[in-house]
Amino acid sequence: MSQENLKWSYLAGFLDADGSIHIRIKPNRTYKFGFQISPAIVFYQSVKQAKFLKKMQKESKLGYVRLRNDGIMEWIIGDLNSIQKFLNRAMPFLKIKKKQALKMKLILKFKSKIKNGKDFLKLSKMIDELEKLNYSKKRKNNSRKVRNYLKKKDLLSP
Amino acid sequence: MSQENLKWSYLAGFLDADGSIHIRIKPNRTYKFGFQISPAIVFYQSVKQAKFLKKMQKESKLGYVRLRNDGIMEWIIGDLNSIQKFLNRAMPFLKIKKKQALKMKLILKFKSKIKNGKDFLKLSKMIDELEKLNYSKKRKNNSRKVRNYLKKKDLLSP
Repeated sequence: MSQENLKWSYLAGFLDADGSIHIRIKPNRTYKFGFQISPAIVFYQSVKQAKFLKKMQKESKLGYVRLRNDGIMEWIIGDLNSIQKFLNRAMPFLKIKKKQALKMKLILKFKSKIKNGKDFLKLSKMIDELEKLNYSKKRKNNSRKVRNYLKKKDLLSP
Repeated sequence: MSQENLKWSYLAGFLDADGSIHIRIKPNRTYKFGFQISPAIVFYQSVKQAKFLKKMQKESKLGYVRLRNDGIMEWIIGDLNSIQKFLNRAMPFLKIKKKQALKMKLILKFKSKIKNGKDFLKLSKMIDELEKLNYSKKRKNNSRKVRNYLKKKDLLSP
């Protein structure tokens, strides 16, 4: 258990230094509210560290590793169960990205209870707040876009 | 103590993800062998994390924090005692940069015993090996330069 905590503390430091806790809003008209909500915890490294990232992924049994076109390796934890497991274990040790981790947990909890367009709009606003913590630039799909779409489709009326 | 280990494990993860263990060879003709040997452990972050880096520096009482011209904050541990303290505590938890840490320790130990130009040349070769582990590019001052200078000054003869 203590050994486990040392591991999670290491991973928290690794994520704080060069990782990301984010949620993308992706237009997808096959979804009920017109957008896919795509949460992820990502570790970035040069392709020289490919072996190491793969080892961490394998040991944790969370997510998968991929090589981007620009030569950056990513260890991506994107499925809900894995994200939740990771956050629960790493939370006590996170420093820089603790706010994002807490917000991510709140958002995923709220997401599981969404009933209507209004709820979905609220969800997208929560994601805006998370992405503000990330100082994310070039973000095109935000709650304003979601609102416009939901209005157009008359999904916001009671 | 266990709490301490959790902190060092976190720092090891942080350093592995986005830090550096390196030694620069800097031409300086006021030094006995014509070069200054400048070791450092450095953590890099965006200036947005300035507060956090300063906090880590303060808590550890190691090194100092500076803002580079390009907006990158650095926490630099550069004096020998602090480097040795850091390496001793973080060593068990380092994964990616463990080789560099071990090599750094060896080099600093050898450096303290240097007697002549031959020793200094050997030192510079050890630094080349460390920098090979770092994949450092654009490195101009290496053991070849040191050899040329020592030869010219007749500092390599027995």
